[in-house]
Amino acid sequence: MSISEKYYPSEPTAPVVKVTEIPGPESKKAIESLGEVFDSRPVYFVADYEKSQGNYIADVDGNEYLDVYAQIASIALGYNNPALIEAAKSPEMIRALVERPALGNFPGKDLEGILKNILKGAPKGQDKVWSGLSGADANELAFKAAFMYYQAHKRGYTTAFTAEENESVMRNQAPGSPDLAVISFKRAFHGRLFASGSVTASKPVHKLDFPSFKWPKAEFPSYKYPLEQNTEFNNSEDERCLKIVENIITSSPIPVAALIIEPIQSEGGDNHGSAAFFQGLRDVTLKHGVVYIIDEVQTGLGATGKLWAHEHFNITPSPDLVTFSKKFQSAGYFFHDPKFVPNQAYRQFNTWCGDPARMIIAGTLVKEILDNDLVNKAKEVGAYLYGELEKLAIKYPEHIKNLRGKNRATFIAWDLSSSDARNSFLYKIKQSGVNVGGCAEVSVRLRPTLTFEKKHADILVSTIDKVLADF
Amino acid sequence: MSISEKYYPSEPTAPVVKVTEIPGPESKKAIESLGEVFDSRPVYFVADYEKSQGNYIADVDGNEYLDVYAQIASIALGYNNPALIEAAKSPEMIRALVERPALGNFPGKDLEGILKNILKGAPKGQDKVWSGLSGADANELAFKAAFMYYQAHKRGYTTAFTAEENESVMRNQAPGSPDLAVISFKRAFHGRLFASGSVTASKPVHKLDFPSFKWPKAEFPSYKYPLEQNTEFNNSEDERCLKIVENIITSSPIPVAALIIEPIQSEGGDNHGSAAFFQGLRDVTLKHGVVYIIDEVQTGLGATGKLWAHEHFNITPSPDLVTFSKKFQSAGYFFHDPKFVPNQAYRQFNTWCGDPARMIIAGTLVKEILDNDLVNKAKEVGAYLYGELEKLAIKYPEHIKNLRGKNRATFIAWDLSSSDARNSFLYKIKQSGVNVGGCAEVSVRLRPTLTFEKKHADILVSTIDKVLADF
Repeated sequence: MSISEKYYPSEPTAPVVKVTEIPGPESKKAIESLGEVFDSRPVYFVADYEKSQGNYIADVDGNEYLDVYAQIASIALGYNNPALIEAAKSPEMIRALVERPALGNFPGKDLEGILKNILKGAPKGQDKVWSGLSGADANELAFKAAFMYYQAHKRGYTTAFTAEENESVMRNQAPGSPDLAVISFKRAFHGRLFASGSVTASKPVHKLDFPSFKWPKAEFPSYKYPLEQNTEFNNSEDERCLKIVENIITSSPIPVAALIIEPIQSEGGDNHGSAAFFQGLRDVTLKHGVVYIIDEVQTGLGATGKLWAHEHFNITPSPDLVTFSKKFQSAGYFFHDPKFVPNQAYRQFNTWCGDPARMIIAGTLVKEILDNDLVNKAKEVGAYLYGELEKLAIKYPEHIKNLRGKNRATFIAWDLSSSDARNSFLYKIKQSGVNVGGCAEVSVRLRPTLTFEKKHADILVSTIDKVLADF
Repeated sequence: MSISEKYYPSEPTAPVVKVTEIPGPESKKAIESLGEVFDSRPVYFVADYEKSQGNYIADVDGNEYLDVYAQIASIALGYNNPALIEAAKSPEMIRALVERPALGNFPGKDLEGILKNILKGAPKGQDKVWSGLSGADANELAFKAAFMYYQAHKRGYTTAFTAEENESVMRNQAPGSPDLAVISFKRAFHGRLFASGSVTASKPVHKLDFPSFKWPKAEFPSYKYPLEQNTEFNNSEDERCLKIVENIITSSPIPVAALIIEPIQSEGGDNHGSAAFFQGLRDVTLKHGVVYIIDEVQTGLGATGKLWAHEHFNITPSPDLVTFSKKFQSAGYFFHDPKFVPNQAYRQFNTWCGDPARMIIAGTLVKEILDNDLVNKAKEVGAYLYGELEKLAIKYPEHIKNLRGKNRATFIAWDLSSSDARNSFLYKIKQSGVNVGGCAEVSVRLRPTLTFEKKHADILVSTIDKVLADF
């Protein structure tokens, strides 16, 4: 029995299309009504989660879509997963929902077990965790850890702050509040708050009208695909980009305390970087005492064929901080160096210090993924899917360009010829019963769950074929 | 039957003190073990939430404390509340936990009802809501709304952005990313992320080593207490502080787009401001086109004798944005002016757009509070408690100074003579079975639940009396 059959005995065997105008009439009514209290303009359709099963999401018009977007890459196992339902009904979960401790001051006796379950899924080399509430929050908590670490090193690990530091910080001035930068990359996405927004550069709409830190941006490699046919060009691209990074670090008017990067730039277009590039960043950050932060918010938890995408690169020594959210349901960062625990209590602190309800879900996800070997299964189905898409790319060369994500399980993307063509493709494939997402201007990204199997891949491929045949 | 008897038939009738060294031996063991994976230095004791009931929190050593700190002011009704347990077991909750939609793109059909339940508790004059995940997040989302509103007004509500804006924003430069400020107040606390941290100024430990926006800080009134005996001084203090605010707005090198303030500065010492001061801020912000944000993260949801503390001030017209979190369990901001909905979709947006599980809890809290008239009950018990504390202040004038919070229900605080004395008091009262919190350097703050009644107040008062008699 396959894992999807085990989890979802009543999963649909094919998409159900009841109405081809999307949103359908019932969704439209619900969107208008929801709009009275909520910005409902970005709503694609109103879902019926009671009827959604496994890899299929139902809407209020009776459509049942094969879902390879999965809540913007945030559903690990599929809808109405029985193991998660069991966790949701557990006495531990009910306590976490009803009491919600200030975990830093009054943790419950079950917190340790909850955290240790999460750590069973930590990236290789990381054995500690700090918890937050969203991807943006996770990244900003990591920045705080990085700034404290960087300054502690600079001042030689003395425990006391000077009177001048204590006084100036209350006025948002140096030396208590120093000018320090996090270097990031063009086309990166790390969230939409003010520090996370300052390291984000994928689309203007995320940032317009907001003040930002004047932090520098390096260049992320722009490879030619397929990768294996363009190694010379891509290697020189790595070298070019690594030089830019080092140049910024050594010449930035604001000292660079940390570097943040996605293993695959996701929102920014599924842009890949090589193992050599990511190792090069390790070398240059070590050389200059810069904290190396890997943002695995979208790439984490198995979708690329490793539990964490940066494990493909075998970075040595391990990156300093690895952030997570989305499919993990809980958010935060992993680390291993005890120096990332600040020198005093209450420096990395807030009222809740994470959400134990979401942490319980995260631990359950780790257990299900490991017990059922879902990462390797994703790798297998991803290899099959990639092969089928390669065939379609030959058949429709103008509509499937720059196919990428080989050996990255189901974390696959390609380009169409224009933004209009991409948007039209996404709309038409929805009309054919498959929910797919885009990224950047012209790209399509596949983000199925870890219970996406060959039978789902076949439906996806045949639907793409059908849509492109009439395109 | 009183509400605490109705909700909590097995609530203890008095604190149980099993060990007077706090943390006790079992807590100590658990703290040490937890410390392997989590920064457990700030832990007071490890709680047993299964055994906690109503206004009493149990620890793993068998102590049962009357809890007037309530998870840093984050528990509205008490532990193991039956209405919340019912909500936690509902099919709607299980769906919210197991599916977790990207609410902006694929909301479930129950979202509208969930939001409308939250809006039943909105402050007077506010009829819309945007949802986030924590108090800091709520404030930063409000800043984003304020910056977009301010810039839209400046550019005359055109819908298009210029090429220069679209290009410069990707480099974190003006005009796309303009230099704009949020004015806040000394001793304020609005969170610990980077923008929320830049408007926070209660303690250096919250901010040291972090870069910040160089935003200006005004002075919050420093009143003499009791308020009714010092009206002349306090009125002139209002005028002084209002002038400083206007002066900063008109002379700041960075244009001031928004002002944020707590109705009572909580973390910063339970500092009160008068209705005239808060109305004066409305007048000056209106005059200069500055967005007026009230941070009700700690004061909201009934603890001051109104559902929202700023309703005591009858501010006219209503403040623009009111943020919430903590006792509400869900986070976000309320507003009424449709111009705070950005001119384009996806500008105020993120993957989750709030947590439906915590929103369900929030709606349940509103229902229970309104159905059981808990705000008025808090007002009554608060008046009684304040009167008893006034008597103790006469008996112990050096240990109960600047008693404040009259007519603010149970939102009461006072000062001791030094930080050491305050910390010693908090430790000794814990040893006597009452969990109390501090704020600022020398203050004690009371933050009981809304089911705290005369019988609880009597235990609290007699325990304070006992502790201070031996002090």
